[in-house]
Amino acid sequence: MNLRKTVTTIAAALAVLSAAAVAPIKTSVPKRPAGASDLVGFALPPIDTVRVGFIGLGMRGPDAVERFAHIPGTRIVALCDIEKERAEKCQSRLDNAGRQRAAVYGGTTNSWKELCDRPDINLVYIATDWLNHAPMAKYAMEKGKHVAIEVPAAMTLDEIWDLINTAERTKRHCMMLENCVYDFFEMNTLNMAQKGLFGDIMHVEGAYIHNLNEFWPYYWNNWRMDYNRKNRGDVYPTHGMGPACQLLDIHRGDRMETLVSMDTKAVNGPAYIEQTTGKKPATFANGDHTMTMIRTANGKTIMIQHDVVTPRPYSRMYQLTGTKGFAEKYPTPAYAFEPDQIAADSIPDHENLSAHGCISESQRQALTERYRHPIIKEVGEIAKKVGGHGGMDYIMDYRLVYCLRNGLPLDMDVYDMAEWCSLIPLSKISIENGSAPVEVPDFTRGAWKKLSGYRHAYK
Amino acid sequence: MNLRKTVTTIAAALAVLSAAAVAPIKTSVPKRPAGASDLVGFALPPIDTVRVGFIGLGMRGPDAVERFAHIPGTRIVALCDIEKERAEKCQSRLDNAGRQRAAVYGGTTNSWKELCDRPDINLVYIATDWLNHAPMAKYAMEKGKHVAIEVPAAMTLDEIWDLINTAERTKRHCMMLENCVYDFFEMNTLNMAQKGLFGDIMHVEGAYIHNLNEFWPYYWNNWRMDYNRKNRGDVYPTHGMGPACQLLDIHRGDRMETLVSMDTKAVNGPAYIEQTTGKKPATFANGDHTMTMIRTANGKTIMIQHDVVTPRPYSRMYQLTGTKGFAEKYPTPAYAFEPDQIAADSIPDHENLSAHGCISESQRQALTERYRHPIIKEVGEIAKKVGGHGGMDYIMDYRLVYCLRNGLPLDMDVYDMAEWCSLIPLSKISIENGSAPVEVPDFTRGAWKKLSGYRHAYK
Repeated sequence: MNLRKTVTTIAAALAVLSAAAVAPIKTSVPKRPAGASDLVGFALPPIDTVRVGFIGLGMRGPDAVERFAHIPGTRIVALCDIEKERAEKCQSRLDNAGRQRAAVYGGTTNSWKELCDRPDINLVYIATDWLNHAPMAKYAMEKGKHVAIEVPAAMTLDEIWDLINTAERTKRHCMMLENCVYDFFEMNTLNMAQKGLFGDIMHVEGAYIHNLNEFWPYYWNNWRMDYNRKNRGDVYPTHGMGPACQLLDIHRGDRMETLVSMDTKAVNGPAYIEQTTGKKPATFANGDHTMTMIRTANGKTIMIQHDVVTPRPYSRMYQLTGTKGFAEKYPTPAYAFEPDQIAADSIPDHENLSAHGCISESQRQALTERYRHPIIKEVGEIAKKVGGHGGMDYIMDYRLVYCLRNGLPLDMDVYDMAEWCSLIPLSKISIENGSAPVEVPDFTRGAWKKLSGYRHAYK
Repeated sequence: MNLRKTVTTIAAALAVLSAAAVAPIKTSVPKRPAGASDLVGFALPPIDTVRVGFIGLGMRGPDAVERFAHIPGTRIVALCDIEKERAEKCQSRLDNAGRQRAAVYGGTTNSWKELCDRPDINLVYIATDWLNHAPMAKYAMEKGKHVAIEVPAAMTLDEIWDLINTAERTKRHCMMLENCVYDFFEMNTLNMAQKGLFGDIMHVEGAYIHNLNEFWPYYWNNWRMDYNRKNRGDVYPTHGMGPACQLLDIHRGDRMETLVSMDTKAVNGPAYIEQTTGKKPATFANGDHTMTMIRTANGKTIMIQHDVVTPRPYSRMYQLTGTKGFAEKYPTPAYAFEPDQIAADSIPDHENLSAHGCISESQRQALTERYRHPIIKEVGEIAKKVGGHGGMDYIMDYRLVYCLRNGLPLDMDVYDMAEWCSLIPLSKISIENGSAPVEVPDFTRGAWKKLSGYRHAYK
């Protein structure tokens, strides 16, 4: 009889497994902490002065300090780097901008905690190596600070959930510093998309294709190449994911359900190490070219690529296909439409519109003029002057401060961070399982339909 | 005891299933027919005059007749179309070219068999709707004819295996008329690739992105839209697959192992039917945008896309990423290289080469001049004059006749046909199983390493 019971159990398990053979791989979703609630549309009372502390002043940090020195309503309270002289060096940037000097921390692997412990800071801005992002952000939130974290903010599902749980529990803002969503073409195109020019957006592409050969030596302690050496998957997906997810209203009415990834073997990565060290690495995980396909609940798709080792021209691919139009940024900005989509906009030469080719350069310029994003109109000129990747870095920091000071939801919330970073662990799982489909968790744990459409907040 | 045995059996099945959860879906591979052998590198004695019969003279057929009329060593023996007057109409093209008139067949659904039965034909050229390609080709081979079949030559795995088995058993050539591998940029770039300019080619992209809105009404009996309405998956993959597989030496030292596909929901397809018939179709299978990733035994990847319903500019994507270089055709032909790859070619301004951008237009022209494909050198000028998609159709037909008349292996064999068409059924399986990985069968059944590298044959 016991045996009979066992058979029944086994048969049931068999049935589940049979179904699972084509079901995506699932990862575990932790329970929401007691007393916590989702942060979709989350805002807090206005903060009069954003008092910021910077951690990590190697590559990206110093320019961020300088940008903040140009944003009204901010005070740069503290600077920290494990190499203390780097933090010290940033004081001159404050001097030049006529700002008060900041307290300086550094020298030990725990100096950053002292910065986070200061009661007079309300925002911690983290621009260290990837592996330190999430632990530092978590610690800062526990100390009551809002956090802004360089990309990618988190590298594993544990880190991602940890940041979500911490943000939901402490009710702090946790924003990833994804700058590419603030680039001019992306913002203007997003505005066109939100105005319906492309119809229903069906498919979006994005990438990080950037030959890093000249950059590898400049990462502290070789952390970036080390990470590539040790990990398969798309380890740097957010520049492609950010604009794609904003176009598709991810967790504002739609959500990513399934992804599948595939990579080539690793050739140029290990070759670089051999060329520069004289020693072939025993193993090298990250393929030369990695790609990921994602499908959403509403039947839209995303394609994301990663390639940092081959001699390709820089590209973030940025491309969208809608039922009524098409846009791509690389290699040359271009738009195509069903003619009646833009005929009413009285753009030049509108009788020559064709559904089979891109609109002309003069038409594109007229359209860009007409659909210039409100934020670009507001700060585009100063952004170009202050700089940072052509202005997008400035707009990013400006918007972070603007939303905090006006008590608005930030442009990017903790779930954007989670979704955009999740490609790192999920693409790895897919690839290590022969390109098996993997379920993308609902990081909002049920709240992805609360808002309808992605929108920037204004006072 | 019997029960115990059952338990053991079930446990074993469970173990297999568990492992299979991440293994690709397998399709069955039929046994090679008795007495048959593989056709890799297959050639026959020279044929003095290629005596051809054409079946299907609606859209693509008449121009093929005209092109053959311009190729020496051919005789156009017979013409057939289900609408006989279409076949009749082609006689004037023969008159104009000073060729003898051909026998005309048509009027019934079996007229084409009469053409195939003629003993004085050695090549049957098939340009009918997709569903008739494979059955006609099979019949013709059984009657001892070589066959040339428009794309896609086969729509299902049964059809694909049927053509392979028939070709292997009858020892007939079975070539798919994939013209895009003969386009000028593709051929010159293939030549550069074979000379090593791009290093090891890691990743290739291809597509059929062509808004067919204006074309749908012209397909006989609405066959093309009907096929899209009834089938998910990439139903027209060969224009992307052909160039990609030639670059990667598929079944000449490498082979495709796994593919994964994903599509968007269907919006513009059903909308077109509703707009033109006033009736919403009850179901519509084919998504607006479909994409497929493929990985090879040697660790290379391919990305193929299909979109025939959105307002996108025409694109076959054609793009390659190598360890030492990069090429793309759309939207603008472009190359990028590690500088030392082409510095020795003394192209203009070679001291300004950079690994981070595309070479200049004058450099590209100089490089194209230097690496012009031998076949383009030979017939590029006449191809442009006779025409057919800018010349590539002529080169395709010319090469078919050239190889038959010189007793050489054809440029594309029955396995190319199988591999390039296999995306149709395999992408469907993947999509219908939630983007599960699907094994690409070894259509050569063990012979994919016999040749080392893809090469055109010359006398």
